[in-house]
Amino acid sequence: MKKIELVGENIPEDGHEVVDASGKYVFPGGVDNHVHMGPFDTYGFETSHAALVGGTTTLVDFAPQDKGKGVIESMHRHKDEKADGIASVDYSFHGMVMDTSEAVLDEIPKMVENGIVNLKFFMAYNGTPFHVEDDLIFKAMQLCRDHGITVMTHCENGDMIEVLVDELHAMGQKAPINHSYSRPPLVEDEATQRAIYLAEMADCPLFVVHVTSKGALKNLVRAAREGKDVYGETCAHYLTLDESFFLKDNFEGAKYVCAPALRTKDHLEALWKAVKNDELKAISSDHAAVVGGFEAKKKGIDDFAKIPNGAPGMQDRLHMIWTQGVEKGKITPQDFVRLCMENPAKICGIYPQKGAILPGSDADILIWDPEYEGVITHANSYEGTDYALYEGFEQKGRADKVYLRGNLVAEKGEFVGEKGTGKYIEPKPYALCYQNYKPKEDKRIRA
Amino acid sequence: MKKIELVGENIPEDGHEVVDASGKYVFPGGVDNHVHMGPFDTYGFETSHAALVGGTTTLVDFAPQDKGKGVIESMHRHKDEKADGIASVDYSFHGMVMDTSEAVLDEIPKMVENGIVNLKFFMAYNGTPFHVEDDLIFKAMQLCRDHGITVMTHCENGDMIEVLVDELHAMGQKAPINHSYSRPPLVEDEATQRAIYLAEMADCPLFVVHVTSKGALKNLVRAAREGKDVYGETCAHYLTLDESFFLKDNFEGAKYVCAPALRTKDHLEALWKAVKNDELKAISSDHAAVVGGFEAKKKGIDDFAKIPNGAPGMQDRLHMIWTQGVEKGKITPQDFVRLCMENPAKICGIYPQKGAILPGSDADILIWDPEYEGVITHANSYEGTDYALYEGFEQKGRADKVYLRGNLVAEKGEFVGEKGTGKYIEPKPYALCYQNYKPKEDKRIRA
Amino acid sequence: MKKIELVGENIPEDGHEVVDASGKYVFPGGVDNHVHMGPFDTYGFETSHAALVGGTTTLVDFAPQDKGKGVIESMHRHKDEKADGIASVDYSFHGMVMDTSEAVLDEIPKMVENGIVNLKFFMAYNGTPFHVEDDLIFKAMQLCRDHGITVMTHCENGDMIEVLVDELHAMGQKAPINHSYSRPPLVEDEATQRAIYLAEMADCPLFVVHVTSKGALKNLVRAAREGKDVYGETCAHYLTLDESFFLKDNFEGAKYVCAPALRTKDHLEALWKAVKNDELKAISSDHAAVVGGFEAKKKGIDDFAKIPNGAPGMQDRLHMIWTQGVEKGKITPQDFVRLCMENPAKICGIYPQKGAILPGSDADILIWDPEYEGVITHANSYEGTDYALYEGFEQKGRADKVYLRGNLVAEKGEFVGEKGTGKYIEPKPYALCYQNYKPKEDKRIRA
Amino acid sequence: MKKIELVGENIPEDGHEVVDASGKYVFPGGVDNHVHMGPFDTYGFETSHAALVGGTTTLVDFAPQDKGKGVIESMHRHKDEKADGIASVDYSFHGMVMDTSEAVLDEIPKMVENGIVNLKFFMAYNGTPFHVEDDLIFKAMQLCRDHGITVMTHCENGDMIEVLVDELHAMGQKAPINHSYSRPPLVEDEATQRAIYLAEMADCPLFVVHVTSKGALKNLVRAAREGKDVYGETCAHYLTLDESFFLKDNFEGAKYVCAPALRTKDHLEALWKAVKNDELKAISSDHAAVVGGFEAKKKGIDDFAKIPNGAPGMQDRLHMIWTQGVEKGKITPQDFVRLCMENPAKICGIYPQKGAILPGSDADILIWDPEYEGVITHANSYEGTDYALYEGFEQKGRADKVYLRGNLVAEKGEFVGEKGTGKYIEPKPYALCYQNYKPKEDKRIRA
Repeated sequence: MKKIELVGENIPEDGHEVVDASGKYVFPGGVDNHVHMGPFDTYGFETSHAALVGGTTTLVDFAPQDKGKGVIESMHRHKDEKADGIASVDYSFHGMVMDTSEAVLDEIPKMVENGIVNLKFFMAYNGTPFHVEDDLIFKAMQLCRDHGITVMTHCENGDMIEVLVDELHAMGQKAPINHSYSRPPLVEDEATQRAIYLAEMADCPLFVVHVTSKGALKNLVRAAREGKDVYGETCAHYLTLDESFFLKDNFEGAKYVCAPALRTKDHLEALWKAVKNDELKAISSDHAAVVGGFEAKKKGIDDFAKIPNGAPGMQDRLHMIWTQGVEKGKITPQDFVRLCMENPAKICGIYPQKGAILPGSDADILIWDPEYEGVITHANSYEGTDYALYEGFEQKGRADKVYLRGNLVAEKGEFVGEKGTGKYIEPKPYALCYQNYKPKEDKRIRA
Repeated sequence: MKKIELVGENIPEDGHEVVDASGKYVFPGGVDNHVHMGPFDTYGFETSHAALVGGTTTLVDFAPQDKGKGVIESMHRHKDEKADGIASVDYSFHGMVMDTSEAVLDEIPKMVENGIVNLKFFMAYNGTPFHVEDDLIFKAMQLCRDHGITVMTHCENGDMIEVLVDELHAMGQKAPINHSYSRPPLVEDEATQRAIYLAEMADCPLFVVHVTSKGALKNLVRAAREGKDVYGETCAHYLTLDESFFLKDNFEGAKYVCAPALRTKDHLEALWKAVKNDELKAISSDHAAVVGGFEAKKKGIDDFAKIPNGAPGMQDRLHMIWTQGVEKGKITPQDFVRLCMENPAKICGIYPQKGAILPGSDADILIWDPEYEGVITHANSYEGTDYALYEGFEQKGRADKVYLRGNLVAEKGEFVGEKGTGKYIEPKPYALCYQNYKPKEDKRIRA
Repeated sequence: MKKIELVGENIPEDGHEVVDASGKYVFPGGVDNHVHMGPFDTYGFETSHAALVGGTTTLVDFAPQDKGKGVIESMHRHKDEKADGIASVDYSFHGMVMDTSEAVLDEIPKMVENGIVNLKFFMAYNGTPFHVEDDLIFKAMQLCRDHGITVMTHCENGDMIEVLVDELHAMGQKAPINHSYSRPPLVEDEATQRAIYLAEMADCPLFVVHVTSKGALKNLVRAAREGKDVYGETCAHYLTLDESFFLKDNFEGAKYVCAPALRTKDHLEALWKAVKNDELKAISSDHAAVVGGFEAKKKGIDDFAKIPNGAPGMQDRLHMIWTQGVEKGKITPQDFVRLCMENPAKICGIYPQKGAILPGSDADILIWDPEYEGVITHANSYEGTDYALYEGFEQKGRADKVYLRGNLVAEKGEFVGEKGTGKYIEPKPYALCYQNYKPKEDKRIRA
Repeated sequence: MKKIELVGENIPEDGHEVVDASGKYVFPGGVDNHVHMGPFDTYGFETSHAALVGGTTTLVDFAPQDKGKGVIESMHRHKDEKADGIASVDYSFHGMVMDTSEAVLDEIPKMVENGIVNLKFFMAYNGTPFHVEDDLIFKAMQLCRDHGITVMTHCENGDMIEVLVDELHAMGQKAPINHSYSRPPLVEDEATQRAIYLAEMADCPLFVVHVTSKGALKNLVRAAREGKDVYGETCAHYLTLDESFFLKDNFEGAKYVCAPALRTKDHLEALWKAVKNDELKAISSDHAAVVGGFEAKKKGIDDFAKIPNGAPGMQDRLHMIWTQGVEKGKITPQDFVRLCMENPAKICGIYPQKGAILPGSDADILIWDPEYEGVITHANSYEGTDYALYEGFEQKGRADKVYLRGNLVAEKGEFVGEKGTGKYIEPKPYALCYQNYKPKEDKRIRA
């Protein structure tokens, strides 16, 4: 396990390998704080070297809750069976509630010692095990707060979506674009605001995953300005792909079906401003590569609501953000590191072991070549699916050399490491979302 | 049925009675757009002459939905049995959904012709017939919009309240003040914002009843400024009684238990500004005089959650608003008429028959004596309960003479009319909340 | 001097003339609170019947300050020589400061009794007698406040304009469009905000004339929401003509040169919303018909900065606002009356003598035919100049019959009255801008 | 000139001195971006070791413009005569305009090569050489922008102040508190907004010095959120001393007379939030120790307006911010470094030579003892004046050891270095305020 020992200008060579990075940037390895490796029919950690090829050295995965099992037990089962000895990246896990019972409340006090410092709840997906009602979220928040666990919410109003899907069905609508019409920005705006209120009432910090809409963003920013401990991230595809992708011919729009839906360009612009201005903290991939890829998506060819949700993207997250963000002047290289390395590690409670080039940090180093020019294409993908999310997009800049704990694992788009050598990273509670948190006084009179 | 025929300066007397109002104001009779006459164990229209004594000539009542019956049928049953021939004021009705099934959706297209142009939904009261889930409200809004029916919402987050009540019970809390702790401003803020989003998604105007909190108010005002068709009212007690009333000795705090709860003084100040600035449209009484009064409230002596909800107030609404508002410089006499006569009538779809002194309007005239000074006390109350909500409050100004359709019915605090002579007023759809409404284009691509 | 005696439904005819207005609207006569009749080489009251033809029965004129004379004396000279016996409309005057000395401060306490209840200051026009520095405005405000005089400000930053004009000259720019480049929205935004601060510091209500930019509007609205006593109007041409009119061929752009400059369409849209939402109080014409018209404007053919400022417009103000506003659904007929009749009268301190159909008001009645369709053209103009500002614009609706104090003075676009029979109207202080004003406490400690 | 060579965990000792900082923080040396060393009768660099004792290793001074001389020439004269060989800290200079002529415009293109990358203008102080009119600022901004020079503005409305001073004189007011009444928050709010508009019109970044009022802050924050390149700082005393200090007995209020004036506590709270939230970028001292101190201040004993402006404070800036900010939980140690070291250096164009512990930075190291407890008192002051601004304030935390370019210069409150060994630091243009700047397109049509 190699660590960074010194940072300086005139380090004596004595026996060390010297890497010439002239003309290139030296970054910490990328950290992706939001991926789905394995559950719901998505490819698992056996494809995780794709992340390395793209410059990301750490993945933080949402461990699915097994039916009838606890969140902790499920995470450990997932870790043991699906990650340890299989993952090529370093990895850690968030808890993810997929059970509407209150059993999770008993688990919360034991989560931190069991490696769970972030716990995710879904407000959408009525009628599935994901969906959780407000009362349970509210109770869980009050407990999480006492243990420094960050509550993460997927914010979409499940009731509205259900009604809208029914309406579209009744209208005879089938095409992938209806995925977007059934989950318009307002469903996200509403649920985001509700999550903020629940968190405020529970006096608990909040992290909203995959913020995509202007309205949700406004709600978050307003709350933060009022001093509430609310934070959010967005994802690479919400910054770079717009709603029109759902309209691609030959059902190809289905490739982009994920939730929340892709938005119109005005939302994209607002999201870029927000990441620039530190109003959203991180840019993740929400990688969820459906097994079978485009072929599998065709289950929904006669019904947009049956298209499996989820899209790949862990490999090209950094390439897309650099090309569309840094190269186009929307963010600086410093912002890039903040959004894709430093903050993701802080959010997950694994900073500064990950996400930093500091003495003591893991020697995860990404040497970035800003001069590279190419085109993203499925032929270069290690993600295991049958299409690349960003097919045909120009690429400026590339992960030139990628070191994981001191070992060169990827170079110029090729995986050159050894599979299955990734390590589990233990996260710490009271992570980024608690940075300004102070418990409120309970003003209830005891009488 | 006397109407106003002429408004002018030199009207020829020829045989008409001339009333000397020198030194007094001549107002249209008060309109109270939010009362509960009868259902849930509250006193009914047999006490409605109390309103007349206070200067209010029209009451618009929330007709309760009978178990297993439709909203329309229930309203008519209520009208026939509880109002016609009994009411001493003129009256009209709102529909009020107390059934969680979707049956109401079939009724909506027939409501207008059956005298229902306003339909109320409760977001609070989980576990009772009142509570309605978001999906039903959302569907109903889409239908109401097509018929010009105003959707009214009682905005409190039922889930939060349930959890908070449980927590307070677990803490052993019993006293009336806990009513307030279990329904803090945030539960209203959240539900108000959610209602706004539902209405926006449904493209339907919204009227929020009894707005009491700064946060809910902000949400409403922000939405209105963004051009959304959202409106709200507050009530006389939310402007004049603060949370400390729940702390009265000898369980007297229970007298003030109603929902939403009374708020702290900063909220009161914000509400006054809002009514002044036309950000809230009306000041109603939300009169709901619990049968048995204070004695009945004692059901909750060992559990704040069992105290029957509701408070009287129809008699002294105008006296309180004049004394605390006009006399203290918070609003002008013109504002008083706008908030307590004109807008309430417009909201209910009965303007200018009610709420105006215009040729053609009903001759409901309130001659107001601004010089009167007294003290509000139960001894003067016609409300039928065993206490006065505003007991001991100073009173400046009084309904000196009250005419209902040209007949003198009250004078100087005494009822001088004939009971049971009130008339039903047929409301019209597309009322105030539709004043700026334009349907949005449906941008969904049919493909 | 005929007054309105009765308003009603069944007024006995006995000898009165009955006018059939079926299918038409009956409005109070129009009030134009902002015109320039005579000074700075503009046509005077001899052309004022043009207003009548357009449905406007009262003009409130800015009386120019004569060189070396006081504001009061100048107003009276102007009234005597230029209006009395000449005007065909009823009229009143605002004071207008055109002297940078402090002499005006001595006059302020005597203004009200001398018929001046509004006093205007120019923040622009550096290097001319109009321009006044902040310190004088600030002092004047403190005095005006004590007498109920409304301070009106023309808000443009004179310093910025001077520099910008010099820059454009240095660039060799000549064309009329440069009028706009030298007076961009920011010069108005800044001065408007400064006026708001000066008024707040002086604890004096403020009325901003001719608001044209989104930024100025935002500043006004924000201040009003914070409870400051600030108000504004806009003018018909700022709502209906955009910046592109300056680009007309053959130097015709010069016809539209007035200050502030015309704006781009996004500003126009914002202004429409503001008048709709009561954020701007009135729509005036700022009629200032340059003597000689387009010919006279050619003085500036080689230098945009030499084009005489000012444009006609009093005749077609109501036609334009109805056609572009009411007919296009931007405002209602009720808004039209509020913005063009009622509020202008209130601002000027002449309501309800003018601007209302109430018993006791002057019998100025405008019967409006909403069915009329035509085209605005100079051939129909009574304004005295050689072009019509709105040449070629479609016209929907027309002043069908116009009564001034009971006398028919215009009908279907023709003047049918007797010239010179207009009357002077004495204004009252503490007008609309003082409606919510309460003096602030002076918190300075006397020590 | 010792530089930092390595940052790491296991640096080989070989011959280096090892300093034990266990239990302490290791910070970069403090940078104070706003001091007045010498001009206007203030003490000069001969007292600059006071800064070192307080942990500040770099001072950036406002070089006064000499009468009839240019800004550049004056800066060099000041540097040569007053700083070189005299200063004990490292130092750099801002230009400061004290001449109302346009001569400065010719100098701007030559400033960067002559060591001036920040140029300050005063909007207050009418009737003195400091005061500059809007047109000159506007022109200068357009030039500064083209050279990467940061325009700094002292924002107070000079006209308002003049009138208010006259009024207070007329009222017979004499005491120091009137300093505050003559320069209330509104005078700052207005000038700040005006500076923002001037900068926007000139398309030039802006840095507002010593922001003290809630209103000015709001204006800045709003503008920044709208994407304008506007920034500001506040000072230690505006965060820690409130208006009541002007009321101290025995004329001691005069000790605190500086401009802008001290504010009420609500402003202080807002400023703390702003520095926490990165809405203000730095906390400087605005050290301006009047020669003669309190004795000299007595010139104004009969007239608050004659009290010499300026207060000391460079020595205890860090102590006060740590004690009142970090210890009270308002900011974190990381914020402390950002606000007092890193950003001040970035603003001045001397980062990362100063303000950072990075390989290549000057070895200015501050070892901070968070355990120290004491009381600030004049007996410990090196500032040269006869009183300490923060006399009697508790002190938590202290500059334990201070290294300037590797040399220990202060320890535990004592100066232990050699006087006069400070070095001049050459600043670079396009500093912090240009970090997001992109020139706007000129949309004027050339015709």
